[in-house]
Amino acid sequence: MTDTANDPPLSGIRVLDLTSVVVGPTCTLLLAQQGAEVIKLEPPEGDLLRRLGGRARNPGMAPKFLHFNRGKRSISIDLKQPAGLAVARRLAGTVDVFVSNIRTEALRRLGLGWEDLAPDNPRLVHCAIAGFGSGGRYRDLPAYDTIIQGASGMADAMARRYGAPGYMPFVAADHMTGFLAAQAICAALVARARTGRGQAVEVPMFENMASFVLTEHMGQRTYGPGGEMGDPRILDPLGRPVRTLDGWICVSPNTDAQAFGFFDAIERPELKKDPRFSSVSARTANVQAYFSVRSEGLATRTTAEWLVLLRERQVPAMQVNTMDELFDDPHLQDVGLMVKQHHHSEGEIMALNPATRFSGGAPELRDAPRQGADGPAILRELGYGEDEIASLLAGPVVAP
Amino acid sequence: MTDTANDPPLSGIRVLDLTSVVVGPTCTLLLAQQGAEVIKLEPPEGDLLRRLGGRARNPGMAPKFLHFNRGKRSISIDLKQPAGLAVARRLAGTVDVFVSNIRTEALRRLGLGWEDLAPDNPRLVHCAIAGFGSGGRYRDLPAYDTIIQGASGMADAMARRYGAPGYMPFVAADHMTGFLAAQAICAALVARARTGRGQAVEVPMFENMASFVLTEHMGQRTYGPGGEMGDPRILDPLGRPVRTLDGWICVSPNTDAQAFGFFDAIERPELKKDPRFSSVSARTANVQAYFSVRSEGLATRTTAEWLVLLRERQVPAMQVNTMDELFDDPHLQDVGLMVKQHHHSEGEIMALNPATRFSGGAPELRDAPRQGADGPAILRELGYGEDEIASLLAGPVVAP
Repeated sequence: MTDTANDPPLSGIRVLDLTSVVVGPTCTLLLAQQGAEVIKLEPPEGDLLRRLGGRARNPGMAPKFLHFNRGKRSISIDLKQPAGLAVARRLAGTVDVFVSNIRTEALRRLGLGWEDLAPDNPRLVHCAIAGFGSGGRYRDLPAYDTIIQGASGMADAMARRYGAPGYMPFVAADHMTGFLAAQAICAALVARARTGRGQAVEVPMFENMASFVLTEHMGQRTYGPGGEMGDPRILDPLGRPVRTLDGWICVSPNTDAQAFGFFDAIERPELKKDPRFSSVSARTANVQAYFSVRSEGLATRTTAEWLVLLRERQVPAMQVNTMDELFDDPHLQDVGLMVKQHHHSEGEIMALNPATRFSGGAPELRDAPRQGADGPAILRELGYGEDEIASLLAGPVVAP
Repeated sequence: MTDTANDPPLSGIRVLDLTSVVVGPTCTLLLAQQGAEVIKLEPPEGDLLRRLGGRARNPGMAPKFLHFNRGKRSISIDLKQPAGLAVARRLAGTVDVFVSNIRTEALRRLGLGWEDLAPDNPRLVHCAIAGFGSGGRYRDLPAYDTIIQGASGMADAMARRYGAPGYMPFVAADHMTGFLAAQAICAALVARARTGRGQAVEVPMFENMASFVLTEHMGQRTYGPGGEMGDPRILDPLGRPVRTLDGWICVSPNTDAQAFGFFDAIERPELKKDPRFSSVSARTANVQAYFSVRSEGLATRTTAEWLVLLRERQVPAMQVNTMDELFDDPHLQDVGLMVKQHHHSEGEIMALNPATRFSGGAPELRDAPRQGADGPAILRELGYGEDEIASLLAGPVVAP
């Protein structure tokens, strides 16, 4: 199989990316990491994340932008100008995938909807990431991550667990929907390989995140109105890392073998015969008591001591790493997740290698682009002449 | 395009699924929802989630199991018996995708690793979902969602935001890694359509979740050791739903137009010229003061009043829905996310339709299987004779 070495899975796939901030860039980051050519089309003011993404060395190059946009090309176009829109539409005719998080109606007004582009490019996979699906009445409401965390029950899960509605400490609705959009795009590309034709895909944040919440927490409501919702194993106040003599530890003995090994480790072997704890179903039904045993049992030794004792018995256990500690983690160093990299405009930075590995290989680590950096080259590839290019760069296409 | 109507994207893709609990079943749920035939191979005791997934009407059919395993077939095999293992290996020769969350070494011992299966099935996409990648020293440590939330910095993000290490109130590391595994599998299928060959894919939970945390929170650490980590917009104590006169509201004015609309809505138009709030960069640098203005401004009216006032000005805003309220949400009713369904063994239940929509269509909503329900049919499809089938069902294959 030498001929597939260094042939990343999405080699040859060309993506026009009209997304911004996190939801879309998460999606196209995965595609870029897997070898797709991603052309990021930014408005004249640039992706909002360039400024929203933390204190930067240089304007418009916020650190969060660097991480979410690695390995993409950038062309910056004013779509309000007809000549700019014409460039975008010409570009859309040359790609395998079009992805945007612009609302459907606005996209149609620009002539960039599926129905507009498919006649000239029937192999196109057109992915619309939407706050709310076009089949429902919220379709025109603006959405951000926080709006969806509130709408979808995520903030309520936080309330049930921590006492008041809260957001997860991540742009989690955006980030997860981005993963799902990349998955859906690839599924549509699989279909295209079979049928020869592209299709339209709509990935709504609200519906996907409500589904995320409900698969986990529908509980007894599965059986009808009035049934109690919320998984008690997850929402129990003791469902958390446990204090040791010197810090915190995560321990999750789920199978009988693990639970019994845990009881041995905390020197309470009699609990193996306790009818509350002697089977998976029993421990699920008595989750509070089980968690209490766990909390009480672990207070007497240091985290390092417990890790030895528990791992000897094949009980899943791990220290709580701080974000800073990740940089010293020996496993992450073994696999090279974080690497020093010289960014062409930002100098030495820490970059992230792809976490998922394909035996077919991955593209080399590439930089996140400065706004519009690839505009002239992309125009040339589209067949524009040098005079046209100069005129476009003086007008609707923002010069790098 | 009438001939693609009701042709789901993954039609014709056959998946052998040796996963259990949440991480793998999340992955194969997406594949099943997109039309793949998923054959769930369960051990004699069944997927742990059958018992761990909440109080059930019938043994082994926990509600969470129903939601994560919809539309899959089940065969239950004792892989410790040579005749059982032979069935599994024969099955592996007939599929497009093999996915497991068994540790690499154990998989090799069973003869179900990529290197074992590829010679007879070179088009196979072999996906190993791992707690920790095989290239690093934690490769043999057992992992569950909580272990990874603790290891990856997720629990630390909770500590930075809420004061003590905590888990997100979801099996979030499992659930997200499952999304990513489904994406990676489809990317490898795209590659196969180009090259004619399958490949091995490894999707490690730890590395993927560390990457999830770091893309969002690397912050100034991007520029070198000692740089402050954590996105202050996300970790600020005021970064949360805000109290109104009668409840909670989510409001996120990010662009200038949204922020200025918000200042008008709370009748503080002078803030548009305040140098702390007059641009995206200024509001990012003064995020605490900006969040304070937001909290103070919203205390005076009800949530319903604010939603009208804010939406008139195109400011993203939403009430905090409880999980129960999702069942009454008019948008979710419009799109039919939750539907009543008659499950063949569990009676009337609430089921979830796929959230993402493909213009090529989706398979009909199907049931989650009873353990081993499809065993005899699958054996027949593999070409076993009726005598062999009877003998297998009396031994290593668990009868339904």
